[in-house]
Amino acid sequence: MVVLAVDIGGTKLAVGLVDTDGELVLSERVPTPPGGDADDLWKALAGLAESVAERAAGELIGVGIGVGGPMAWPEGVVSPLNMPGWRDFPLVARLSERFPGIPVRIHNDAVAFAVAEHWRGAGHGSDNMLGMVVSTGVGGGLILGGHLIDGGTGNAGHIGHIIVEPDGPACGCGGRGCLEAVARGPALASWALAQGWQPGGRPSLEPLYLEAAAASARQLAFDAAAGDPIALAAMRRAGRAIGLALASATHLCDLDLVTIGGGLSQAGKLIFDPLEESLRAHARMDFAQRVRVLPAALGQDAGLIGAAALILRSDRYWAG
Amino acid sequence: MVVLAVDIGGTKLAVGLVDTDGELVLSERVPTPPGGDADDLWKALAGLAESVAERAAGELIGVGIGVGGPMAWPEGVVSPLNMPGWRDFPLVARLSERFPGIPVRIHNDAVAFAVAEHWRGAGHGSDNMLGMVVSTGVGGGLILGGHLIDGGTGNAGHIGHIIVEPDGPACGCGGRGCLEAVARGPALASWALAQGWQPGGRPSLEPLYLEAAAASARQLAFDAAAGDPIALAAMRRAGRAIGLALASATHLCDLDLVTIGGGLSQAGKLIFDPLEESLRAHARMDFAQRVRVLPAALGQDAGLIGAAALILRSDRYWAG
Repeated sequence: MVVLAVDIGGTKLAVGLVDTDGELVLSERVPTPPGGDADDLWKALAGLAESVAERAAGELIGVGIGVGGPMAWPEGVVSPLNMPGWRDFPLVARLSERFPGIPVRIHNDAVAFAVAEHWRGAGHGSDNMLGMVVSTGVGGGLILGGHLIDGGTGNAGHIGHIIVEPDGPACGCGGRGCLEAVARGPALASWALAQGWQPGGRPSLEPLYLEAAAASARQLAFDAAAGDPIALAAMRRAGRAIGLALASATHLCDLDLVTIGGGLSQAGKLIFDPLEESLRAHARMDFAQRVRVLPAALGQDAGLIGAAALILRSDRYWAG
Repeated sequence: MVVLAVDIGGTKLAVGLVDTDGELVLSERVPTPPGGDADDLWKALAGLAESVAERAAGELIGVGIGVGGPMAWPEGVVSPLNMPGWRDFPLVARLSERFPGIPVRIHNDAVAFAVAEHWRGAGHGSDNMLGMVVSTGVGGGLILGGHLIDGGTGNAGHIGHIIVEPDGPACGCGGRGCLEAVARGPALASWALAQGWQPGGRPSLEPLYLEAAAASARQLAFDAAAGDPIALAAMRRAGRAIGLALASATHLCDLDLVTIGGGLSQAGKLIFDPLEESLRAHARMDFAQRVRVLPAALGQDAGLIGAAALILRSDRYWAG
């Protein structure tokens, strides 16, 4: 018995087969059609899904999907911010037509990440965990009392919108001073450029281009590792903001553990040291001091494994 | 069948009988012995509990307790901040000796408040609710997916320690800039005095005395209602800080509803208007816009009703 696991992102589509032990048996990836309309995107996904499903040879017991928000949940009508071609796209209904007779379940991709880390990653054995992704955006998922928390509309876990600077930068959500507005990769790179950062140590003639590039946060982490003072300050800025948000989340939810994945978490102690410093300065009560922060353990397979868990471990991860 | 409900505070001890419909059948209150040692406090409580329990005439099916934190939970070894006479006092064990053969269960008093509001108050019918008390301290309890969230050590719901001013005033928890440090009654009164507030419109010769008095926050609300500009500014300061914390909590937990009780919530629109303004400015995503904020419905009986619910509705409110 296997689950067809689907992980849909702005740059790549991944589909895999996950067995009942949570092992990813096989997977395939294709680029997300750039600028694709609703049909282009669906054809690319459906083609990939069918090619992978064929290899399940009648063993398929369900389909699990992780995709960027927002979406109507649990119906699975999706409008991923980073895929303008899909607006109110009935993704679950379409996949249910292709794979009739088995359950098709969906959640936010950051929730799928958190579920995977709880089931088989760094959060294994913890009953009260936040799984967090720091990358182009900042997202997360919340496991409390050993069960995935959905909230009223499937949107629990939005750690990126804990407010860390009440009068801080405008956020894509329409608010201001959210963790995401401060610590997402492009915001950090933009902040560093405004402070005079020269990516790669070279004066740049095209700061606006660089600001927009997905590569800029990676370059920032690289320059920080090489000792660039502005890049280091940017990492501290991100780490401190994350630490503040985690102190608030720990107080509200009495967490045992936070696991952090995503591109920016690759910066290692450049991020984790200021993060720990700010978390420990604010989380002082006995119960809050025990929270641990660990890098994610599963790497890029987390999205597929978490999506599969919506089917395979529905006792813990599916209340929809 | 009835439950013996116990609500223990720094100024009063309350014990009541609650029937299976959640109705408070009778209750008695006595002042908490001021400056009492462990034994004084226990004798006062035990005497009151026995006098009320006698009137249950063999119908007693359990004991539920709400008390200020911190405590070892679910064991119920308590050290309430506002009762220095009890440090590591084995409250549950002592009550179990007095009332053998029936369950004795305990939770934080703000959690008991939230449970009561969810079961029979303003939160009835909501599956994702924060119940919050704004008074000498700021506390709360969290119901998600229709069930009380305990967190790893029974401390979930600490909304008072969401950070609203990262470099703000020192907090009793050891941190800085927590909601409680800004919005608890004494902090507000102290802030207003520092701005030149003259309580009751009279210049005060004893600002330090007033600052310490429990009455000062009530006076502040009274003066705000009378139009005192500094008192009004203090209410706005509290309302905004609460709104910020609620935006963060709503994003993290995808709440339907927040109910607010406690002394300061009596100030009505003087607090709720700036609260709503700041909440709505920061909670902009569709899912977050739907959160509603309501004054608590149950008044001073909430603590007893919530404590009883730990026994009567253990399916929802007791995982200890």
